[in-house]
Amino acid sequence: MIEHGILDELRSIVGIGGVRTGEALSLIHPGSDERNLHAGVLVTPGTTEEVAAVLRLCNERGIAVVPHGGRTGLVGGGVSSSGQIVLSLGAMNRILSLSADGAIATVEGGVTLQSLQEAAARVNLSTGIDIASRGSASIAGMISTNAGGMEAFRYGVMRHRVLGLEVALPDGRIMSDMAQVTKSNEGYDLKQLFIGAEGTLGIVTRAVIRLAPADPFTATALVACPAATDAIALFRLLHGSLDLLRAEFMARNYFALASANLGPAALAAFTEAPCYLIVETGAADQRSARSALEDALARAIEQGLVVDAILAQSEKERSEIWNIREDSSIVDRVHPDGHWFDISVPLQALETWLAQFNEGIAAFGPDVRGFVFGHLGDGNLHVGVAGLKVNKDAAKAIVYANLRELGGSFSAEHGVGLDKRQELDAFADPVKLELMHSIKNLLDPNGIMNPGKLLGRKGATPIPGAH
Amino acid sequence: MIEHGILDELRSIVGIGGVRTGEALSLIHPGSDERNLHAGVLVTPGTTEEVAAVLRLCNERGIAVVPHGGRTGLVGGGVSSSGQIVLSLGAMNRILSLSADGAIATVEGGVTLQSLQEAAARVNLSTGIDIASRGSASIAGMISTNAGGMEAFRYGVMRHRVLGLEVALPDGRIMSDMAQVTKSNEGYDLKQLFIGAEGTLGIVTRAVIRLAPADPFTATALVACPAATDAIALFRLLHGSLDLLRAEFMARNYFALASANLGPAALAAFTEAPCYLIVETGAADQRSARSALEDALARAIEQGLVVDAILAQSEKERSEIWNIREDSSIVDRVHPDGHWFDISVPLQALETWLAQFNEGIAAFGPDVRGFVFGHLGDGNLHVGVAGLKVNKDAAKAIVYANLRELGGSFSAEHGVGLDKRQELDAFADPVKLELMHSIKNLLDPNGIMNPGKLLGRKGATPIPGAH
Repeated sequence: MIEHGILDELRSIVGIGGVRTGEALSLIHPGSDERNLHAGVLVTPGTTEEVAAVLRLCNERGIAVVPHGGRTGLVGGGVSSSGQIVLSLGAMNRILSLSADGAIATVEGGVTLQSLQEAAARVNLSTGIDIASRGSASIAGMISTNAGGMEAFRYGVMRHRVLGLEVALPDGRIMSDMAQVTKSNEGYDLKQLFIGAEGTLGIVTRAVIRLAPADPFTATALVACPAATDAIALFRLLHGSLDLLRAEFMARNYFALASANLGPAALAAFTEAPCYLIVETGAADQRSARSALEDALARAIEQGLVVDAILAQSEKERSEIWNIREDSSIVDRVHPDGHWFDISVPLQALETWLAQFNEGIAAFGPDVRGFVFGHLGDGNLHVGVAGLKVNKDAAKAIVYANLRELGGSFSAEHGVGLDKRQELDAFADPVKLELMHSIKNLLDPNGIMNPGKLLGRKGATPIPGAH
Repeated sequence: MIEHGILDELRSIVGIGGVRTGEALSLIHPGSDERNLHAGVLVTPGTTEEVAAVLRLCNERGIAVVPHGGRTGLVGGGVSSSGQIVLSLGAMNRILSLSADGAIATVEGGVTLQSLQEAAARVNLSTGIDIASRGSASIAGMISTNAGGMEAFRYGVMRHRVLGLEVALPDGRIMSDMAQVTKSNEGYDLKQLFIGAEGTLGIVTRAVIRLAPADPFTATALVACPAATDAIALFRLLHGSLDLLRAEFMARNYFALASANLGPAALAAFTEAPCYLIVETGAADQRSARSALEDALARAIEQGLVVDAILAQSEKERSEIWNIREDSSIVDRVHPDGHWFDISVPLQALETWLAQFNEGIAAFGPDVRGFVFGHLGDGNLHVGVAGLKVNKDAAKAIVYANLRELGGSFSAEHGVGLDKRQELDAFADPVKLELMHSIKNLLDPNGIMNPGKLLGRKGATPIPGAH
């Protein structure tokens, strides 16, 4: 536990209301991991200078700092323990400026994605990135985890949305590189180090975000494909000839379970196939969006890429189709014992990986099920392995098998956090790992920033599937 | 000059043909800067391991290494001098793999952009990046300078096209992070350090490049706008409602000089206006591309965003329109005494910057002319100031005035090299500069990598216009 003298010093920096302990802290929801607030001290600075002053103090006293955004992380990156402090950006939640002409916004780190989406929508723009936890996820958290989502094949991941960044360093210095332009080559692009660093190198206090055009009128279809290669060919066809906005993938098992449990009957009774896609395309008006997608799907059926398709004829039908994909926690509700993974597979290897995964699952026998869904354009798959017979290591052995050789990644969009340090040590290039430790040591020599997260221990034991 | 013993050691690494000096070297064109080959020694390794071995040797002996790609750089980043060696990737020019399904290519660093463009086009893909020096510029050079070009508002700059990277470090280690996926969050994204580092931290030996869909059928128009804000509104309109592929900006002076000197008469006689755009949009067939652009421009004329437009009715007319923009060296041929700049201005500040620039030029009197053209979507302007009365510092004072306050950049897409070190020192955030020096010292403690480039001296004198 932090000593009282330190708490007083923290209060002198951020004000009395900016330091929560005990009962005041118990009112705060811990978020996606119940251990997030175990530190017992929550500090909420109101300005960049306060963040820097808190870090300077903690650096001098050797107190570990766990940065929190929206507490929606899925890999334990926000877990804290006694003796540490949690530093939340929750009080730094202002959109400082938003220019429709420039299509950029300058924000404090604690702004939620949804706030920024709503502000952008008012001037007919979008954030170009969308994730399910939009209501809580903060921009600084999304930067620190380099968030992905459904639009990455069009607009890139969070790294590609960041034009400028302000970061408080562990020693209390503030690096301000608040560029407002896409093209800026002014020496080493050091902001990139902090994007995806999961709070282990400094704290993102402000950012300039590049905005994208708002979605036009859309058409949405659920499509059944004979194989993953056909789904990919359909993706290329639509991406090359229409304004393809989203292309979400669902393998047979996932679609069967989700449609049977979520309904409606028309979707639950949809043609059986190895692969399904939800595709959404845009056009200048509703009617031409639907007719263009209908024409394209008719061609795809002729070419054998698609065996059946349902084109949403109303907003209600659109929502029903999307619900099958978005309410993916249905798998957890039906099979609460599942092990989950977040991987990327290059599209040219998707069929191979899926075949190998299905074989591996089948070898466990009928009590074990595999569920695969995700973002087709990026080859980003969320993979669940459920069944009492399977422990996490056995599941890893199937999911990670040949993943490196196929050009994939064990960590697509959720990050490393606490949960995947072993994978990082096993999969990462050894020279890259050495450099990572050197960079950490350079920027945070006292190791106060989110210790134990992301950076695995050197020489850890290898894990199944990794080479 | 390098001593003979070292040359023999270099030959033992790369073979006798891989080390050129004297007469053999004199046959090589120095490229865009006549000083590029002043080192007098050109080493062309054939493999990553040879690159690493050369660096290890030079690191041990304290010999500076100047990396060369296509020798098309514009800021002196490839300049070498006696006692140094030039390391060229010219012999590492193979496309190692290209997957149409995955829309990715794995290449050696010396591959030219044009080779990759041609290979991508054969499977109906494109590189998503295009620059005028495509025939010579190498992928490694484009990565090291984080090249930009005309498609950046759609597909980002070179940084956004790189999925994976292999780098030979100064001490001979090889960092191999050849990810083939967009979503890969496996710790600090260290490859970003080398992108845009201008060869001062290591040598890019191989890369995985993300490809984009090939352009569809296109329509092209030359458009005259009453003001920059109108040009931007037109850009937003087209980008939001059509598949906008290119939007190139030309201010009055540039268009007048280029059209008068390059012709044809129809373009030279085009409506006079403060701003011109060349816009190119795409659609599934030629006819609908032209009719959609025509409709959109008709609406823009009604709204007062456009005063006049010429829609190209043939490939010949399209070429004539593009020639006005692409043959920009016409300014140099007419006014050989010009000073040139490569800046970015956020779009919301473009009108302000242009007004201020035009005022500054006018204040010099009629003998001084300002020429502005560039890539509208990124606010990337190439700016020329010509006239015998103006020295470089006086030109800087006008071009850089308020640029930082407006959110712009002194270095958009050409890099810092030798020419803009003073600007970097003056404009960059001091903490960022400190960290840059720390990173340089960490990765290249002996300072052998492209010394004197990019990193300015600490505490250099301030320059006009900078704060």
